[in-house]
Amino acid sequence: MKISDEILKELKFDDKGLLTAVAQDFETNEILMVAFMNLEALLKTIETEKAHYYSRSRAKQWLKGESSGHIQIVHEMYIDCDADAVVMKVEQVAGGACHTGYRSCFYRTVDGNIVGEKVFNPEEVY
Amino acid sequence: MKISDEILKELKFDDKGLLTAVAQDFETNEILMVAFMNLEALLKTIETEKAHYYSRSRAKQWLKGESSGHIQIVHEMYIDCDADAVVMKVEQVAGGACHTGYRSCFYRTVDGNIVGEKVFNPEEVY
Repeated sequence: MKISDEILKELKFDDKGLLTAVAQDFETNEILMVAFMNLEALLKTIETEKAHYYSRSRAKQWLKGESSGHIQIVHEMYIDCDADAVVMKVEQVAGGACHTGYRSCFYRTVDGNIVGEKVFNPEEVY
Repeated sequence: MKISDEILKELKFDDKGLLTAVAQDFETNEILMVAFMNLEALLKTIETEKAHYYSRSRAKQWLKGESSGHIQIVHEMYIDCDADAVVMKVEQVAGGACHTGYRSCFYRTVDGNIVGEKVFNPEEVY
């Protein structure tokens, strides 16, 4: 995978140097997580085809799955019209993207119902 | 649609008072756009079941489709594990979410190929 020079120049990082990044399942399009990337995380993702993000709370770049082993293999990557967000179609290793054990971080509706599928026990993984 | 008191209390806005908001097609799960919501936009979206966002560049809340008529009818709404992002399953009126005329704002891969479908002529709409 590579990024074109034109899109590289066009990227619009926010005032913290971040883009929004969305990971969706490469087969079903289910949205697994939403996070952020700095330039380094973006380039590392493109180079390795494994999703890297930037943690705002820990103020560092991280490889998704570095502690759990639940990496995300990136099949396709898209940029939006104003070049401040990316979408990745990913293959979620071990099935669960969320640190809580759910397949997706979006396992609740806004009225509080749990609708997601729990696919691993976080106590056994972390 | 409503938001539970528990989730309302749990919401984690960033230092500008914003959540990330992702709109995906309610039938195919295609991601149509990524934007932001302040509390007012979130509550207005839940109350009206039409997507409202907060524009960082114009520094104001807006109803998606207010000038084009291309509103988004919200069928379902999810919150993520750390309560700083929402996902909406929407019905995109007139088919195109992007102001450029494409169905999705993510009409390009990072290597610069245009892969999206153009569904309207923006000059006729705006």
